[in-house]
Amino acid sequence: MNNSFGNIFRLTTFGESHGKAIGGIIDGCPAGHKINFNHISNEMQRRKPGQSGIVTQRKEEDLVEFLSGIFEGITTGAPIGFIIKNNDQKSKDYYHLKDSFRPSHADFVYEKKYGIRDYRGGGRSSARETACRIVAGAIAKQILDTIRINAYTKSVGNISLSDNYELDKPKNIEESLVRCPDKTTSDKMIAEIKNARKKGDTLGGIVKCVIKNVPIGLGEPIFNKLHSELGRAMLTINAVKGFEYGSGFNGTKMKGSEHNDIIQVDETTLSNHSGGIQGGISNGMDIYFNVAFKPVATVMRDQQTINSQGKESIIKGKGRHDPCVVPRAIPIVEAMAAMVLLDHYLINKTKTI
Amino acid sequence: MNNSFGNIFRLTTFGESHGKAIGGIIDGCPAGHKINFNHISNEMQRRKPGQSGIVTQRKEEDLVEFLSGIFEGITTGAPIGFIIKNNDQKSKDYYHLKDSFRPSHADFVYEKKYGIRDYRGGGRSSARETACRIVAGAIAKQILDTIRINAYTKSVGNISLSDNYELDKPKNIEESLVRCPDKTTSDKMIAEIKNARKKGDTLGGIVKCVIKNVPIGLGEPIFNKLHSELGRAMLTINAVKGFEYGSGFNGTKMKGSEHNDIIQVDETTLSNHSGGIQGGISNGMDIYFNVAFKPVATVMRDQQTINSQGKESIIKGKGRHDPCVVPRAIPIVEAMAAMVLLDHYLINKTKTI
Amino acid sequence: MNNSFGNIFRLTTFGESHGKAIGGIIDGCPAGHKINFNHISNEMQRRKPGQSGIVTQRKEEDLVEFLSGIFEGITTGAPIGFIIKNNDQKSKDYYHLKDSFRPSHADFVYEKKYGIRDYRGGGRSSARETACRIVAGAIAKQILDTIRINAYTKSVGNISLSDNYELDKPKNIEESLVRCPDKTTSDKMIAEIKNARKKGDTLGGIVKCVIKNVPIGLGEPIFNKLHSELGRAMLTINAVKGFEYGSGFNGTKMKGSEHNDIIQVDETTLSNHSGGIQGGISNGMDIYFNVAFKPVATVMRDQQTINSQGKESIIKGKGRHDPCVVPRAIPIVEAMAAMVLLDHYLINKTKTI
Amino acid sequence: MNNSFGNIFRLTTFGESHGKAIGGIIDGCPAGHKINFNHISNEMQRRKPGQSGIVTQRKEEDLVEFLSGIFEGITTGAPIGFIIKNNDQKSKDYYHLKDSFRPSHADFVYEKKYGIRDYRGGGRSSARETACRIVAGAIAKQILDTIRINAYTKSVGNISLSDNYELDKPKNIEESLVRCPDKTTSDKMIAEIKNARKKGDTLGGIVKCVIKNVPIGLGEPIFNKLHSELGRAMLTINAVKGFEYGSGFNGTKMKGSEHNDIIQVDETTLSNHSGGIQGGISNGMDIYFNVAFKPVATVMRDQQTINSQGKESIIKGKGRHDPCVVPRAIPIVEAMAAMVLLDHYLINKTKTI
Repeated sequence: MNNSFGNIFRLTTFGESHGKAIGGIIDGCPAGHKINFNHISNEMQRRKPGQSGIVTQRKEEDLVEFLSGIFEGITTGAPIGFIIKNNDQKSKDYYHLKDSFRPSHADFVYEKKYGIRDYRGGGRSSARETACRIVAGAIAKQILDTIRINAYTKSVGNISLSDNYELDKPKNIEESLVRCPDKTTSDKMIAEIKNARKKGDTLGGIVKCVIKNVPIGLGEPIFNKLHSELGRAMLTINAVKGFEYGSGFNGTKMKGSEHNDIIQVDETTLSNHSGGIQGGISNGMDIYFNVAFKPVATVMRDQQTINSQGKESIIKGKGRHDPCVVPRAIPIVEAMAAMVLLDHYLINKTKTI
Repeated sequence: MNNSFGNIFRLTTFGESHGKAIGGIIDGCPAGHKINFNHISNEMQRRKPGQSGIVTQRKEEDLVEFLSGIFEGITTGAPIGFIIKNNDQKSKDYYHLKDSFRPSHADFVYEKKYGIRDYRGGGRSSARETACRIVAGAIAKQILDTIRINAYTKSVGNISLSDNYELDKPKNIEESLVRCPDKTTSDKMIAEIKNARKKGDTLGGIVKCVIKNVPIGLGEPIFNKLHSELGRAMLTINAVKGFEYGSGFNGTKMKGSEHNDIIQVDETTLSNHSGGIQGGISNGMDIYFNVAFKPVATVMRDQQTINSQGKESIIKGKGRHDPCVVPRAIPIVEAMAAMVLLDHYLINKTKTI
Repeated sequence: MNNSFGNIFRLTTFGESHGKAIGGIIDGCPAGHKINFNHISNEMQRRKPGQSGIVTQRKEEDLVEFLSGIFEGITTGAPIGFIIKNNDQKSKDYYHLKDSFRPSHADFVYEKKYGIRDYRGGGRSSARETACRIVAGAIAKQILDTIRINAYTKSVGNISLSDNYELDKPKNIEESLVRCPDKTTSDKMIAEIKNARKKGDTLGGIVKCVIKNVPIGLGEPIFNKLHSELGRAMLTINAVKGFEYGSGFNGTKMKGSEHNDIIQVDETTLSNHSGGIQGGISNGMDIYFNVAFKPVATVMRDQQTINSQGKESIIKGKGRHDPCVVPRAIPIVEAMAAMVLLDHYLINKTKTI
Repeated sequence: MNNSFGNIFRLTTFGESHGKAIGGIIDGCPAGHKINFNHISNEMQRRKPGQSGIVTQRKEEDLVEFLSGIFEGITTGAPIGFIIKNNDQKSKDYYHLKDSFRPSHADFVYEKKYGIRDYRGGGRSSARETACRIVAGAIAKQILDTIRINAYTKSVGNISLSDNYELDKPKNIEESLVRCPDKTTSDKMIAEIKNARKKGDTLGGIVKCVIKNVPIGLGEPIFNKLHSELGRAMLTINAVKGFEYGSGFNGTKMKGSEHNDIIQVDETTLSNHSGGIQGGISNGMDIYFNVAFKPVATVMRDQQTINSQGKESIIKGKGRHDPCVVPRAIPIVEAMAAMVLLDHYLINKTKTI
């Protein structure tokens, strides 16, 4: 537990943002899969800092070195160990945090819980850890290659797409700096982010994820329902404050007679308020869900706080930070979804003899 | 996994709605706690069908028989086994479901996943299973007796309380048939539910849960954050479609400079958009979250569907069902929260030597 | 953990020897298996007290009541809950133990660990718990019906069979009161046990288990090797002091050139010192292992000990106890082996896609 | 599972003998412990190949690089990631194994189970993996610093120490090349090993481990008894064929009246046939156990086998191998014991509130 995710296909991660390296071990990866290393690199690029003008300008190469579990390019069933070295660390940027607790960061609670913390760049609590999830998620995506997982930016601050995900074209996502498939909305979002940055402020937003071609039967009642696993997965991503699938919070305002999804003779449903999951098990329809990200806590302004002596102090925003994490969170949401689906695909193989 | 919940304090449940009994095993309950059996009964009463005019009229006694783990009224550290017999089953009410898949129920996916299903009353997918969670949750509440966990109805359909939970008085919750602490809103909700029932229709709603006096330090980064554990727990409850904590989905529209919770010299924060959890670890402030419940899928109307031969058929609503599950879901939300907190309280004891 | 065994096919048990009932939950049982209830009863009979003149004369009916997970005789994939009521308890026989710690029993350590114990008949530490393992093991045996698991008595005290298990005929096992397949040795063992009982003393012994027709490939390196799982399983049985498989302790005296099992073109090996497992994975040859049971700790003699006030006291042997547990341990060894094999059979299904 | 060991204090390992590196992640290590890196190096030296004339002459530096979880020399509660690079690989030594299955090695079963294997030096099945256990075990030893864990060579082939472990002086262990505390026996063992090597043959042996100052109360009934956890741990070490604790297999020949350990007023027992564990829980007396190692499977002789085409072939012993693994297994046995004890020490903290 704690630093492991998944039951059969399980990722365990380690690493602080300013240590020598971060990395992980993927256990339970099925044997015999030919790894596409380019695909993994591409996924890493999508999460990488410094990829565009609206994200943090930190330079992190994020080169993945695989150390085991792959022989002549093929998975062997042995655990896949990998590391990603930390290069452009600039730890000095963080020295002022040694004795100070940043508001709405994990500094204070880590200090209280463990009695010690690596204050450099948030240490273990840094979102840098999510790079490891990209690696495992990319491999999961490759193995589940008939399933299509597409996440994109649904909203940034008050700028939002409509609720009908059918209108959103996956092919347009990567063309947008904010990963929003609608050009007009994308432009507004970019302007909003630039504006926030100019003011030393930050924004939140919502990521939508749509998954197509999921086989019927994935998900384990009672306590490992497919949506509780997806929800849990998303809630482990830094800055996430909420998860809803299918009709979600808005669905609470519908009548049962409107909300029910009529089953048709081809085994599809007429509507899909269920979001592709019924009773915790995939029913073959599209799975779709929303993930809420709070505005980034590191603002480029002076903020009041306390220091480790319990005295009032002022903290100044420093360093190179994202004004909005949503664009870079897209591949992380996809990676977590892929891991959940592969894990449950494998678990489901054990349900009948 | 699957039918177990929790790491150290772990509940495993069994049982179908129309089998002989449901029940569970609580493993990892600390030794030496004097059980208050009346408190457990009271919690069971809060979830019980037939408790008021706006919930299902099924009569279920829901008597808990403890079979082990408690000696002379005190927990021994051995697993606590318990059963709850199924009495008023009326399985005949469900015989028409043998060959038919109810829309937005788990019938279809269970049949596909397992190749067999107990069609009586939903079998394993019935919310009757949640009675077992009440038992474990009640014990967890007793052990964590300084922590206050109060859930209540925030909305039913379109009738909603304001967002400021500070206004809601826990003492008024149980006086309301819908468990809404505001008398005026409660009356509107009751009227709405009665109206829906009259039309053979159903409603959804939102449950808010507020937890006070949580010690600092509960929750385990990276993959067992306190909020990911709470979210996962809530998403395992039948009919739940979403979870948000602290500022939640609305928080995505705030600026970082507004959203940040300034830390004060007394170690409290000025605002609490974080919802009592930072970096996955409790910071001592109130934890609060919302849980979205879809409208009940069983409507008292004819609905189109398919049967197990894949042919179109009409299904008629029969039996005794809730027009809105939200009032009875309140104690379940509390029970799941209590289990998560106790589990993490125990885990946290192992973090330092 | 603690009261659960297995990864995918997982048994969780509860119950004390003098509580209302013992029981368990089998999670992860594959769906679609038609349960043979007679077979389960027969397995229960083999473990039951009072079955012959050389075991305890306690009468325990050991009727298994299944409460869930089986519909119209077939497993549904839902957890199988079951209870076994405790009837012939005679708790008064144990009242003298309330304040006294029996030598080489768990009384003292339970008191120290938990600060409380159910002193009646050993409470949770009683071997009565193993009845639940018989239930799960019987179901596992049925599902793995092509695999043959036969345990039998290899030694009682100083009376022992030869080391060549090929000579031992499974069909003769159940004809012997001590479950030893060789008539002459069996008679000697029975005489030895009767003699020990007459003197108020007890005996230990060794159980051998032979498993045939195991598919190649079961067992998970590194930390869930098939033999480490079998060994762990056996070491959880009450009174077990040792486990060896294949050539075992004697194999340490062989040279490598003698010990190696030459692989033949039919993929069998010429010898089988490996005991059917290489590198933790089954190789298709017979799996065989020995399990050492200490002499029963309850002797019908006065023994010195201390009481809960820490004062010296004398404890008198009372009640109805086995002079040697080995004959009744046979089905428990088989049950644990069956659970391990089914669990690993299911895990192995996830190793390739 | 599979490549993870432990419940709270958990090691996950990765790596093949001829990959770039092996390594691991230690999760659940308590925060605030000052790491003694010299001690870890020393423990690594004890396991290292090439340390004396009677073990393999492979040169492996076995330098541990810590990548995370330790800040300014102190554990932070974050996972400790580490790698050990593979330097002196000589993979060419193993090229002849590409298509050939070595007798009594894991080659054949890995090929069958996974459909692919890294044939170089045994790949994942190589004992090189145990270097990672030394790292985690060393940290566990440091944290449990009042507990003394000493393993040593009890027998090599037919040369054996007496059964009375009280005679064996821990301080003499490391002075002996075979890690046998009795000089005369040690000399005989060394001669035996040299003799076997001269003939291209190999030997097995028995390791005894004695643990002093264990607190009362460690171990979790029913399925995580302290001895079942220790046994399981030992059985995961390469080449291990058996485990016995306390009186072990010989104890099966004793009478109950002889075997029982009388409890004295100082809460110690008069004898210690129980081996410091009763009912699965430590009772404060010395824990002691034996671990059986088979003779090394790689002999420097021609052996018959089959190749991957299923044809008969001859395999020649090549490379640099141990004629007897027992001396180098000593620190591994200790490391596994230390991990089990720390894990259970932490678990035990959750048993009362």
